[in-house]
Amino acid sequence: MADIDSKFESATPIGVTTGPIRGSRKIHVATQTGSGIRVAMREIDLDPHSGEPPVRVYDTSGPYTDANATIDINAGLPEIRADWIRNRGDVQEVTQREVKPEDNGQLGPDRSGGVPAFPNVRRQVLRAKPGANVSQMHYARRGIITPEMEYVAERENLGRARLSEYKRDGESFGASIPDYVTPEFVRDEVARGRAIIPSNINHPESEPMAIGRNFLVKINANIGNSAVASDVAAEVDKMVWSIRWGADTVMDLSTGRNIHDTREWIIRNSPVPIGTVPIYQALEKVGGVAEDLTWEIFADTLIEQAEQGVDYFTIHAGVRLPYVPLAAKRMTGIVSRGGSIMAKWCLAHHKESFLYERFDEITEIMKAYDVAYSLGDGLRPGSIYDANDEAQFAELYTLGELTKRAWAQDVQVMIEGPGHVPMHKIKENMEKQLEACGEAPFYTLGPLTTDIAPGYDHITSGIGAAQIGWYGTAMLCYVTPKEHLGLPDRDDVKVGVVTYKLAAHAADLAKGHPAAQVRDDALSKARFEFRWRDQFNLSLDPDTAEQYHDQTLPAEGAKTAHFCSMCGPKFCSMKISQEVREFAAKQNQPAENFIAAEEAEKLVPSEVEAGMAEMSELFKETGSELYMGAGGREHD
Amino acid sequence: MADIDSKFESATPIGVTTGPIRGSRKIHVATQTGSGIRVAMREIDLDPHSGEPPVRVYDTSGPYTDANATIDINAGLPEIRADWIRNRGDVQEVTQREVKPEDNGQLGPDRSGGVPAFPNVRRQVLRAKPGANVSQMHYARRGIITPEMEYVAERENLGRARLSEYKRDGESFGASIPDYVTPEFVRDEVARGRAIIPSNINHPESEPMAIGRNFLVKINANIGNSAVASDVAAEVDKMVWSIRWGADTVMDLSTGRNIHDTREWIIRNSPVPIGTVPIYQALEKVGGVAEDLTWEIFADTLIEQAEQGVDYFTIHAGVRLPYVPLAAKRMTGIVSRGGSIMAKWCLAHHKESFLYERFDEITEIMKAYDVAYSLGDGLRPGSIYDANDEAQFAELYTLGELTKRAWAQDVQVMIEGPGHVPMHKIKENMEKQLEACGEAPFYTLGPLTTDIAPGYDHITSGIGAAQIGWYGTAMLCYVTPKEHLGLPDRDDVKVGVVTYKLAAHAADLAKGHPAAQVRDDALSKARFEFRWRDQFNLSLDPDTAEQYHDQTLPAEGAKTAHFCSMCGPKFCSMKISQEVREFAAKQNQPAENFIAAEEAEKLVPSEVEAGMAEMSELFKETGSELYMGAGGREHD
Repeated sequence: MADIDSKFESATPIGVTTGPIRGSRKIHVATQTGSGIRVAMREIDLDPHSGEPPVRVYDTSGPYTDANATIDINAGLPEIRADWIRNRGDVQEVTQREVKPEDNGQLGPDRSGGVPAFPNVRRQVLRAKPGANVSQMHYARRGIITPEMEYVAERENLGRARLSEYKRDGESFGASIPDYVTPEFVRDEVARGRAIIPSNINHPESEPMAIGRNFLVKINANIGNSAVASDVAAEVDKMVWSIRWGADTVMDLSTGRNIHDTREWIIRNSPVPIGTVPIYQALEKVGGVAEDLTWEIFADTLIEQAEQGVDYFTIHAGVRLPYVPLAAKRMTGIVSRGGSIMAKWCLAHHKESFLYERFDEITEIMKAYDVAYSLGDGLRPGSIYDANDEAQFAELYTLGELTKRAWAQDVQVMIEGPGHVPMHKIKENMEKQLEACGEAPFYTLGPLTTDIAPGYDHITSGIGAAQIGWYGTAMLCYVTPKEHLGLPDRDDVKVGVVTYKLAAHAADLAKGHPAAQVRDDALSKARFEFRWRDQFNLSLDPDTAEQYHDQTLPAEGAKTAHFCSMCGPKFCSMKISQEVREFAAKQNQPAENFIAAEEAEKLVPSEVEAGMAEMSELFKETGSELYMGAGGREHD
Repeated sequence: MADIDSKFESATPIGVTTGPIRGSRKIHVATQTGSGIRVAMREIDLDPHSGEPPVRVYDTSGPYTDANATIDINAGLPEIRADWIRNRGDVQEVTQREVKPEDNGQLGPDRSGGVPAFPNVRRQVLRAKPGANVSQMHYARRGIITPEMEYVAERENLGRARLSEYKRDGESFGASIPDYVTPEFVRDEVARGRAIIPSNINHPESEPMAIGRNFLVKINANIGNSAVASDVAAEVDKMVWSIRWGADTVMDLSTGRNIHDTREWIIRNSPVPIGTVPIYQALEKVGGVAEDLTWEIFADTLIEQAEQGVDYFTIHAGVRLPYVPLAAKRMTGIVSRGGSIMAKWCLAHHKESFLYERFDEITEIMKAYDVAYSLGDGLRPGSIYDANDEAQFAELYTLGELTKRAWAQDVQVMIEGPGHVPMHKIKENMEKQLEACGEAPFYTLGPLTTDIAPGYDHITSGIGAAQIGWYGTAMLCYVTPKEHLGLPDRDDVKVGVVTYKLAAHAADLAKGHPAAQVRDDALSKARFEFRWRDQFNLSLDPDTAEQYHDQTLPAEGAKTAHFCSMCGPKFCSMKISQEVREFAAKQNQPAENFIAAEEAEKLVPSEVEAGMAEMSELFKETGSELYMGAGGREHD
């Protein structure tokens, strides 16, 4: 479905956005091992006259963009991982925990909130056999390469087929990015805790992906239920719309009514890992009174969500009683909802957090389903003023302690980070996280690099996200233009996702990620050769690129014209550049032999004369066709 | 005038956008010297109940946002610098060069292009007396502090009155930013060539501003004439609209017909320095045939524009004959229009560039009017692939050579920079520029940090702009969402300006610019205290901030409500944070005495117990009002 003016597009019969992303095809690439595993990617065909090969790009959109797929949200997605999970022989079927009214935030037994239960919801779900550990980390540490790891390796190798054409380049700040990703490399990274593959055994619909400093930088989009969710498809489409534009994972931050049923609909239809903050639902179950929270209610909520298939849980176990008062002298106190809930509980009971004290018991639950930890930064700064303060770092070091405790049980962990941080304080966050948390993947919100631009915080934070991604952050949690002001609509979500996708890619380029530049080069070459359609199709948002172009030059002919609206048909620097190239080509020597650039500034007149004479000679050979057209494209 | 839905707003009688920026007042602050000079600023009053002082912000918008000003674009702006210029006694009146038809790109004598001449255009213009040099640099080097320097000092000291409240912080990469800016400091920076004050003696309407690494980071917006300019006010309003949102200078990149007359209208009504690329108009005069350009035509164009009052000229004198072939092996060749014009001329004549060979003669003209150089980077990279190549740096070192030649005649210089550069190659650009060009101010376009997001290049470049601004770039040339695709409309211009304004501010924060954080802190405090109106008014774009807020909570009451749409009335982490603060305040010891954060990770159980007991005691004293409300605002 085209996305131009998405607000006004009519819903498809199945109620979610489907159809190929403009100018590309879904493909499924077999892994090298011959295991029969096929990895979903997107391929962009370029103008046949260009002689350029198709460009393969990473694809998070799942079957929704596959022209050959049939989408039925009442049935959910195919369970591509079902056999992989069962064939490991370490899971058992158990009867799913009975859904209670309070799971949907209702006092009575009715489900009058407008959200029907997912049809044929599983009565039987999976759990590790007694004593077993089904986490990817556990397999990795025992030397087992899982199909999930194999899938990830092929997926991450994107573009590396052309690696020989590239000289590796970049500053990775100590990362260890290989030329080629092997399944063994993935296993080793997961075993060391430097990467996670969120893959709950009850979410077999998910396409495996890795979050780690030595892989492509990932992004997360947040969604939440509407106050009155009368249309289930609309709730599911928030997820579908996010992954269409590039969200690698989606967090369901729903609160209030119907969150259990809404979550079931989302997970059954999601090809990407789903994250949640279980304390939100637990709080609903005690009527919103933080001090009434108990370990039993919380643990029951973890099992409820683990059985549905949530892939990672944000757990704010680092908000310890002694740290709470450190927030007192802050400009903006505690800005994390989960953090403030736990702070309130700790003060109410003058007790240490039960999340901290029961951490090993939580880990026991996580490993029975392979739910990954996303250790929450409940004390992250909410303003430039509060950045990098002692409350923030006290919590970070506790998260490091908890990381090691989770790893002791082979449970996967990533660490959440800020927030609001001025540029000169960003690197310290990355360095302290790597040191405190043993290189566990860092997952940051922005950070926002200034507080003065509400309405543009996708940009104030995109600046910080690109930098911290370059420094080593593995996943960037998006921020929309509505941050601090209101609830994002469909267009805000798209702008947030695309902004973070470009920030993540800028980070991959700067880290020297192999072949990350393939797409930049393909687009630049298309730009230079006036292949407008290829330019649009290679961009992160082909619909908007074409829409902007057509606002100035609507005619179809303009898409093949050898000029653009900035300079018009008369002037074009691309044209003279091509002439310069022909000029150089006609010589029997490479252009740089005219003169070495390093020598340029040292030129003395006589040498200049010599250079000119040489040029003059060469000119006479090349003739006058060199001298047609002129002009330029960008500013001056 | 409100800006919501600017596209649809009806034009005011005088045809340009006027009226205060929402929530602020224009003020005029007297300088400390008692000279009577008064500096225009904007003051934002905060909620009287907050007890917060008004916040003064840098203001580029001129009289257009002054409720007490009468705007008449037929008369032009008041000439605030007229007496300053004349009182120096080194200028003479000369008859303005006769306007020729080709000045307006017309073959015939008529001015049928739809742009009338500016009413009462000056017959007499100013020029330095024979042998005199009227450049700010010349005065500075003779130890003279001009009123322009005094104005700049006061303007830059913004917020420093509250400096005592701030601990200076930041990484400035070798900049020398003083706690307070004195007129003497400004003089010294201009004398050393580290800052420029673009101030053509024929543009007395301009409010003095400085471009330099030790001052606030500035931004430039580009405007150009419409193909058919039937409405002069619309052309002038492009400039007025740009400065309303924060453009510190505006470049008129018009080509084709009527550019002389359009330029006169813009300069007579502009309170900010105006820059141009004279080669564009010179090319028009020779019918667009680059090889027909001559020194005589170019020099005549410089005088034509200098007499009108253009404050800085982009001169592509660094595109030397020997460098042209270096562009041959590039992905995207030469992307600078001026650069390609000169490349074409050089090859056509097999001669060194006349701009390079006649550079000292150009400088003679510049110093007679105090036009500053903006030495153009005609060989800047147009793609990630071409970043930091030998063509680019060969030109940069030549610009360094030319800088010293201009300084030899006391003429002000800044240096233009790229372009398209991945993050890990940005710093090298800054370091080489500082070294090659003796710390002359750097003026960069972006740079764009990836090529894969056309439609979002204000963001791909905003990321690079914030970084290079942090590293030391003095002025950032904006990029709009339409870059590479089409011509920006009114909304694109605003988005581009605000994006660059926030990038420049993020750079000021990271450089540790004194009191740059005053505005961030004021906004964060307003956010924490739910002063919604103050939040909107303190933001870079109050109209959009309020518009976004109202999309979710339109009611006027919501602007005073102690909650926001993200969490609703029930949950609010700000609330519990305030409770935590009260809790700490009730104690006779500061919060951090509970426990030192640095000690946190080393806690042993017994100490934890002790800490808890202490908390417990304190709690009993403070009572239960601590335990109301909970929740949070941002993601998780």
